[in-house]
Amino acid sequence: MTRLSNFVTRAVTGVALTGISLGAFAFQALPEKAPEPADNPGTVAKIELGKQLYFDPRLSLDGTVSCNSCHNVMASGTDNKATSAGVAGKHGGRSAPTVWNSAFLSVQFWDGRADTLEDQAKGPILNPVEMAMPSEKAVMDRLQQIPGYVTQFKAVFGDDGMTYDNLAKAIGAFERILITPNAPLDRYLKGDKSALSAAAKRGMQAFEEVGCNVCHAGANFSGPSLPVGQGFYRRFPTFDSKYDSQYQLKADAGRYEATSKEADKHMWRVPTLRNINLTAPYFHHGAVKTLDEAVRVMAKTQLSKELTDQQVTDIVAFLDGLTGEFPQISMPRLPATANSSLVD
Amino acid sequence: MTRLSNFVTRAVTGVALTGISLGAFAFQALPEKAPEPADNPGTVAKIELGKQLYFDPRLSLDGTVSCNSCHNVMASGTDNKATSAGVAGKHGGRSAPTVWNSAFLSVQFWDGRADTLEDQAKGPILNPVEMAMPSEKAVMDRLQQIPGYVTQFKAVFGDDGMTYDNLAKAIGAFERILITPNAPLDRYLKGDKSALSAAAKRGMQAFEEVGCNVCHAGANFSGPSLPVGQGFYRRFPTFDSKYDSQYQLKADAGRYEATSKEADKHMWRVPTLRNINLTAPYFHHGAVKTLDEAVRVMAKTQLSKELTDQQVTDIVAFLDGLTGEFPQISMPRLPATANSSLVD
Repeated sequence: MTRLSNFVTRAVTGVALTGISLGAFAFQALPEKAPEPADNPGTVAKIELGKQLYFDPRLSLDGTVSCNSCHNVMASGTDNKATSAGVAGKHGGRSAPTVWNSAFLSVQFWDGRADTLEDQAKGPILNPVEMAMPSEKAVMDRLQQIPGYVTQFKAVFGDDGMTYDNLAKAIGAFERILITPNAPLDRYLKGDKSALSAAAKRGMQAFEEVGCNVCHAGANFSGPSLPVGQGFYRRFPTFDSKYDSQYQLKADAGRYEATSKEADKHMWRVPTLRNINLTAPYFHHGAVKTLDEAVRVMAKTQLSKELTDQQVTDIVAFLDGLTGEFPQISMPRLPATANSSLVD
Repeated sequence: MTRLSNFVTRAVTGVALTGISLGAFAFQALPEKAPEPADNPGTVAKIELGKQLYFDPRLSLDGTVSCNSCHNVMASGTDNKATSAGVAGKHGGRSAPTVWNSAFLSVQFWDGRADTLEDQAKGPILNPVEMAMPSEKAVMDRLQQIPGYVTQFKAVFGDDGMTYDNLAKAIGAFERILITPNAPLDRYLKGDKSALSAAAKRGMQAFEEVGCNVCHAGANFSGPSLPVGQGFYRRFPTFDSKYDSQYQLKADAGRYEATSKEADKHMWRVPTLRNINLTAPYFHHGAVKTLDEAVRVMAKTQLSKELTDQQVTDIVAFLDGLTGEFPQISMPRLPATANSSLVD
């Protein structure tokens, strides 16, 4: 932990991160199962309930937006938009992060303001520019009118189990199974040396040499494993560059917006690079449209390095090798209200 | 055909439809397979492509609305809203009909302006208040940038197969498998006399006695089987009543809006009653919130009858018995564009 604390401190003070031994940052294959919190073990019934809730637009004020609207499980786990459209077409200021492999993040949201998947799930439902429900009570009052949910909450959580906390637990349990193992890199690490192209292998080396993996470490490329709730944050941008104005990199103060602590200004949770070639546009505000430009910007703003075109091409080829296998998932059946609508 | 033509003519002239022998309108179980057009046989690969397209929000201008947004296959095949939200939260004037069992309709849309599922699929994508794509060419230009679609169109439709017509064929082929057999009524008709409750059986009798099945005939309760493209239309409302102003029943001129023919004023395609207890709110504009009220309004406006509360309750119980079994469907994987987004 000492080493990690050092990194965070050094990032805060803006000191360059070159010259650190990379030995601790060996590439790791993505596990096929994510760690479960002790108070929310995944069960078949809970995951099924969570899947229904995840896809149910009735969790939004006007019945048009579900979790899946912005975090599309059938695609990249995002909506591939700079910022997402909530109810009535409203847009927030940050880009929807992918739900795939989010179980491996030790904090949630771009600014780490939620410790767990469960905590995260509670946010967008009540956010006025996202799903816009007026209160936890309003959500649960609506779900109480859907017999299929009443039955399932009772079966999964017990007689008094129909609570907003348990709604979040069910959604979290579903999200925890959204894992994409067996990316070319994972197969490569397990011994299939042909799984990565020559360009990807060059890119892998460049990724280390340039220093990308100082932050994008661990199996999820989102930093080292930390206890739940302990975020791995970095200042972005760390170095000033032309990109600050070109892409408005400092318009959003990052974690500071959540904590109001001076030290958190422009601090961001290090995001995953898993499936990164599917989740354009890039960065917290989706201002960078392509992965090659995102690589260039990161090298400059975080490591003060100008990459050659060859380095960019190779690193992108390596990142393309982080796209995993998406599991086959059956569609949920959303429980109905007979003879009337809750969202008309 | 003579009898059917008579019905339509009589409806146009507003003559009451009582006293017609109901012998030709025996209840029929829903087939498990819908008829296929000769020029669009369903194949596994075509249906899979159609499923991807059906769920792909990139068929809309800003990447937020898919076919499924308004015709939710995970639920009732509708969005349970009076009118649907298209891109940027825009609303049209009519309620989204269910996609389930739409393969059994001989014409599509509330006003029958499309002959087939394939023709129907072409409309909402280009409708400015729905998916709002500017042209067929713009749709296909976008899909041409998605390698997974290029490959699939070629495999399914041949080298020059990436056309808007074929997009519609794929979507139509997918929609044609969306059938809900084995409703309680179907099981009842096949010999399981316990499949309908006593109330539902009384309702079945009332449904005939009142005359509902004069129009809501056939296995799909949307009128008799007709050749593709030949619609079974009725005037709504046929009789004036207090409901005309209460629910603005005459604000929309129905099929006249599509044909500009005087005889088509307030003519509507008879909609299915399959799964009707899941598809509130009711009528072309979703102005009636509950099924019992919809039954009351229909009896008054179409048959000039005031139902007793008992009749309404019983008919609703019967209609509840038209909700079928929804097949398990796997989620599609939407093909990606690597390293950039088409809808950012």
